[in-house]
Amino acid sequence: MGGDHGPAQVVAGALAAAAGSGIHIVLTGRPSQLRLHLPRTDVFGDPPAVPRGERPPSGSWDRRGPGTVAIAAADDSISMDEGALASWRRPRSSIAVACQLVRRGQADAVVSAGSTGAIVTTARLRLRALPGILRPAIAAVLPTQPGPTVLVDAGAIADPKPEMLLQFAQLGVAYAQVAHGIADPRVGLLTIGSEPGKGNKLARRAHELLASAPAHGGLPINFSGNVEGRDLLAGAVDVIVTDGFTGNVALKAVEGATAFAAAQVRAALQGSAAARFGAVFQRRALRDLAARMDSETYGGAALLGLEGTVVIAHGASSAHGVASACTLAGDLARGQITEKIRERLGPVRSTLFLRRHGDHPQYLP
Amino acid sequence: MGGDHGPAQVVAGALAAAAGSGIHIVLTGRPSQLRLHLPRTDVFGDPPAVPRGERPPSGSWDRRGPGTVAIAAADDSISMDEGALASWRRPRSSIAVACQLVRRGQADAVVSAGSTGAIVTTARLRLRALPGILRPAIAAVLPTQPGPTVLVDAGAIADPKPEMLLQFAQLGVAYAQVAHGIADPRVGLLTIGSEPGKGNKLARRAHELLASAPAHGGLPINFSGNVEGRDLLAGAVDVIVTDGFTGNVALKAVEGATAFAAAQVRAALQGSAAARFGAVFQRRALRDLAARMDSETYGGAALLGLEGTVVIAHGASSAHGVASACTLAGDLARGQITEKIRERLGPVRSTLFLRRHGDHPQYLP
Repeated sequence: MGGDHGPAQVVAGALAAAAGSGIHIVLTGRPSQLRLHLPRTDVFGDPPAVPRGERPPSGSWDRRGPGTVAIAAADDSISMDEGALASWRRPRSSIAVACQLVRRGQADAVVSAGSTGAIVTTARLRLRALPGILRPAIAAVLPTQPGPTVLVDAGAIADPKPEMLLQFAQLGVAYAQVAHGIADPRVGLLTIGSEPGKGNKLARRAHELLASAPAHGGLPINFSGNVEGRDLLAGAVDVIVTDGFTGNVALKAVEGATAFAAAQVRAALQGSAAARFGAVFQRRALRDLAARMDSETYGGAALLGLEGTVVIAHGASSAHGVASACTLAGDLARGQITEKIRERLGPVRSTLFLRRHGDHPQYLP
Repeated sequence: MGGDHGPAQVVAGALAAAAGSGIHIVLTGRPSQLRLHLPRTDVFGDPPAVPRGERPPSGSWDRRGPGTVAIAAADDSISMDEGALASWRRPRSSIAVACQLVRRGQADAVVSAGSTGAIVTTARLRLRALPGILRPAIAAVLPTQPGPTVLVDAGAIADPKPEMLLQFAQLGVAYAQVAHGIADPRVGLLTIGSEPGKGNKLARRAHELLASAPAHGGLPINFSGNVEGRDLLAGAVDVIVTDGFTGNVALKAVEGATAFAAAQVRAALQGSAAARFGAVFQRRALRDLAARMDSETYGGAALLGLEGTVVIAHGASSAHGVASACTLAGDLARGQITEKIRERLGPVRSTLFLRRHGDHPQYLP
């Protein structure tokens, strides 16, 4: 039900993903509205409630297979302009029902084009955090060459603790391994200078933690040091770690600047008769470039650190963007991203304390 | 002596500014090195020491006029890779001597292409802060259409207090008035959502202060609310306020993404014979576009809040960039930017206390 364009684009994208990637899609929302956009589909209604940990009884819910589309009724939906707080009062919203399906084992992943705040809050409320995870974070993908770069956190936590940035690195590494097939992803810390001492307090402390990993538990991190804003699209590292405030500003700055530059080029190429004539010969090259730079190709951002895969499609996604998001969700679930993250974090210590030490909480063994 | 290309580009740029804008240039550095790049110039040597507040005695230093170039000897220089700390031990560095000239009233503005850290530290050490200024900040210019947008702080203070962001707004407004001729500049706060409650703790508190200005002193601010990363180049406001960490990441992200997009377009237009043929007809349009997007046209960033104008040219500046920076410094000094800032901040309260109140220092009347 989410997204700036409402169910039409979301349903069309889901249908395309079901046909193209052979994944099974369950649409959550008001059946009457969803059916308007569906050619013909069995509506299975609400899945039966089952106790935690148990599998649901077989029945109409098992009449699903690769490439099929079903509907799970959700009476409510959270509109794009509602705050994250709305999620607490809305157990029957389309995003809440989708999370419940994953929690009950009736679906492997959630995809939503709704408001990021509502998705993050609802998912944190309805899906368990993985053991040891302090806070789940958003992994977004930057269109670098030759391969993409993962940015974590792209906006889930505006004021994280330094220890959370260490976990973001583990989340980003697991993502780069599963989604991009990189065996030992290089990790960079986003800050404002190349030397270790550069940055704000948070970045300086996070640098110490990343440089000393895995002293704080988990698998080793291939830490390449600091990266700056101008390196976001340089492709020098596979994972860029930052706080959710800086990450969100940086991601949107890159999107905005790329769109701005593209608009300027378009205007220049249409600005004179000679330039317009020249552009006739470049149609193919410019179309290919536009497709490569299109953020929708990357399928949106993933909320990592929960027991279940959550993919957040851009609110303005077209059907193409939603289909990419569904494919990404399928890939992450098949690649067992949650298991990968669990492995990377290592065994949870039996006693985990947070102690105030200066500005930073610390773990005690 | 600063800049990635050494004195050659800096001197060439200064000569161009002297010839083009009719401003008087004093080069500070090692005379033997500087003379290599000068056609013929009187070298006046070190200016005489004068007590604070007094004008220097007339003499060889007065033999200057519009369009002339002189040299003030500085035995030392801070290299691009030295940290800000180096500034404390280097009273004879070229940037320190330049600041001393301004402090003594023998120059109106400092321009440097040296390392930002060294310039900020030296300038804060050698030039007085304006009354009431908590910390000087860097104003950088974004190449928006139809007019440029000022970003404050672009990297001087990584961990500012919310009250400093209110001052950054005043600095940015004064800059937009003097450098861009905007009578009542619109001010936006850079954060991660359009609603007032969005952002990290710092941004949320800064929003409150900006929305209630001038309750905290100074002239009223035309506050337009929050802007996001994607709005940096939208041109919807004239001044964007943020902390130095986020501002530096955002500025470099925009620079990097614009350069990345330009490189992608260039590659696409050279990628096939047909596209190359088409590009022949677009030479003029693409050259005009490149000139408009060139960050060097804007002359670099200004360090605001000190008794004296300081302009920081990009380290990689060519002679063109240095000339723009000199012209900007001349414009700011002629427009009496320091006086404008003094007016905007209002009279300094006779007793100024900082009290711990939660995380935020507060003023008491």
